[in-house]
Amino acid sequence: MENPNSIGTVETQYVTFDNLTLCSGKELRKVIVAYETYGKLNASKSNAILIDHAFTGDAHAAGFHKGAEKPGWWDSMIGPGKAFDTNKYFVICSNVLGGCAGTTGPSSINPQNNKRYALDFPFITISDMVVLQKKLTDFLGIEKLLSVAGGSMGGMQVLQWAVSFPEKIRSAIPISTTMKHSPQQIAFNEVARQAIMADADWNDGDYYGKRQPVKGLSVARMMGHITYMSDKSMEDKFSRDLKNRNYSFSFNPDFEVEGYLNYQGSVFVKRFDANSYLYITKAMDYFDVSGNNFLKKDTDNINFLIISFASDWLYLPYQSEEIIRTLALSNCKATYIEIKSSYGHDAFLIEIEDETKLIRHFLSKLYKEVGSA
Amino acid sequence: MENPNSIGTVETQYVTFDNLTLCSGKELRKVIVAYETYGKLNASKSNAILIDHAFTGDAHAAGFHKGAEKPGWWDSMIGPGKAFDTNKYFVICSNVLGGCAGTTGPSSINPQNNKRYALDFPFITISDMVVLQKKLTDFLGIEKLLSVAGGSMGGMQVLQWAVSFPEKIRSAIPISTTMKHSPQQIAFNEVARQAIMADADWNDGDYYGKRQPVKGLSVARMMGHITYMSDKSMEDKFSRDLKNRNYSFSFNPDFEVEGYLNYQGSVFVKRFDANSYLYITKAMDYFDVSGNNFLKKDTDNINFLIISFASDWLYLPYQSEEIIRTLALSNCKATYIEIKSSYGHDAFLIEIEDETKLIRHFLSKLYKEVGSA
Repeated sequence: MENPNSIGTVETQYVTFDNLTLCSGKELRKVIVAYETYGKLNASKSNAILIDHAFTGDAHAAGFHKGAEKPGWWDSMIGPGKAFDTNKYFVICSNVLGGCAGTTGPSSINPQNNKRYALDFPFITISDMVVLQKKLTDFLGIEKLLSVAGGSMGGMQVLQWAVSFPEKIRSAIPISTTMKHSPQQIAFNEVARQAIMADADWNDGDYYGKRQPVKGLSVARMMGHITYMSDKSMEDKFSRDLKNRNYSFSFNPDFEVEGYLNYQGSVFVKRFDANSYLYITKAMDYFDVSGNNFLKKDTDNINFLIISFASDWLYLPYQSEEIIRTLALSNCKATYIEIKSSYGHDAFLIEIEDETKLIRHFLSKLYKEVGSA
Repeated sequence: MENPNSIGTVETQYVTFDNLTLCSGKELRKVIVAYETYGKLNASKSNAILIDHAFTGDAHAAGFHKGAEKPGWWDSMIGPGKAFDTNKYFVICSNVLGGCAGTTGPSSINPQNNKRYALDFPFITISDMVVLQKKLTDFLGIEKLLSVAGGSMGGMQVLQWAVSFPEKIRSAIPISTTMKHSPQQIAFNEVARQAIMADADWNDGDYYGKRQPVKGLSVARMMGHITYMSDKSMEDKFSRDLKNRNYSFSFNPDFEVEGYLNYQGSVFVKRFDANSYLYITKAMDYFDVSGNNFLKKDTDNINFLIISFASDWLYLPYQSEEIIRTLALSNCKATYIEIKSSYGHDAFLIEIEDETKLIRHFLSKLYKEVGSA
């Protein structure tokens, strides 16, 4: 498992904040944040980069947990000599508010009654997630981030950082993302929510310690997976290949693609909380930093590197183009690249070579300007 | 309701066939077909056109049922002076085998035990649907159809007619369709099936006279609706408009698009049978008339008019192009038109003006050749 390109063995850390005031005005007490860091913070604290994870991601972005065979979700991008070079940069990744991988969410214990929150968990926004991340970077003693980067919902958090704390970031790398969900994106999320809530075991969110709504959550995940791939990448991977030689003439999966989706669903329900799925999709749907909601003209200069992928039909290239159009009204510098790829939305996790070239160069230039003290 | 452009009041008719041998070798007894006809069969019986309906359609393609406010599903295309001109042509439409609108399907009574078939219903194919339609046209005394036309799954039946009974059709109009489902299309169907089967009320298909699996079926339909529209048509119709002034901070629908989908789901479950959904989607997934499965070189000449729509991402234009490429190896004549439209897959039900021009001209030319005795 240990190799020169890997950050090696890592451990998730936890910090608890006494309270967090949400956009809605509600307050959360004893908020835990699960996070990991890779590399070393330099003396001038100018080399810190925050990585924001996508919808169902977690704090474990790189390296290996002790004994684990699989590395973190963006290990191909984070490590010695990689795009986010841990020989140079101090990289942080934390699980989002509302998540289920260590950070406080609906499956957490409510300190006010020692029961799981379930639907007593307050509604959260992408902005609330970012405010909590800001508390984490404050806790780590970082005055200003060299960069904040992430794909998909991670990219939304990146954009939100630019809106909420423009003076706290030197650069932003939103990848495969949008300033707001289109009705089609809202529609997919709503179908997923209805699939979960249709499961009798969901029980109005009160399923902890009982039967989990695994069927509904699995359906939601299966549909999600269709939107993460492209028509072409599905054709390349599965075509009409059968699991067995002949049609089963049953409602069992006949085609490889069916087997794949059912497997993905069954694996997902073991690691993800159905209520987190509901809360976080709602946060994404509410997110809107378009037009006048975005950066004000008089905000600090931020350097933007915006990346989209040609075959991504979940977060389409035109949505990245909208970011660059909106940035034209600000003092920020921005570069936009649409990478050719057939992998659909998943491309931001797959097209490592192109992403690495772009991000390495972008960060390197920036870091030289800042001075690597 | 009656107007000079409408075929007026119509009634669904029924015919029962003693038996139907399926592709699988199984036999169905006492098979009922629900059908409607519009216009008059001419003396030489050369003016008959069969319309094949899409997945959840029915035999009621045109005119009004007594007292009804809404006409049949393709009334804009079928009637006096319309694309399928009932002043000239004798138009037939029947509910497909496996359906739930009058033709025998899983919700029908099994004559062998007087119970609903449920999952005792045998697996069916698009070819079985077409064999039953052939029985209907035989029953109506039609030797050779002037044309067979349909969109989506209707288009699959059109292609299957050309494969199964090339000598029985003079022309074929497959619209917004494919020679085989891509893995993405199979994937959407599989998620829909899993959504239905995840509903505890589905009860292994044995829900007749009990609680219906309305939640699962509604989720399936909601997802279907996303695939019937385009990103652009959803933006044009809904954008991010809210149902109420503010976010609800609840899991109720906030956005117009959510309200629309939930409404579509709730209406659908009142008219469609969940087991029919399962059987028919499987028939679509199994369907494959691509390559060597298509027309043989020595088959009769058939005139093809193939239509696709630019923004259709469920049945993509490249899939129609595959039909025309395959036809190049046959004796058939073929014209292919991709109509510009932003309506996605629904376009074949909406872009009436363009479709009418193409189809009227195509049929008219053909009918002159045949001679209108």
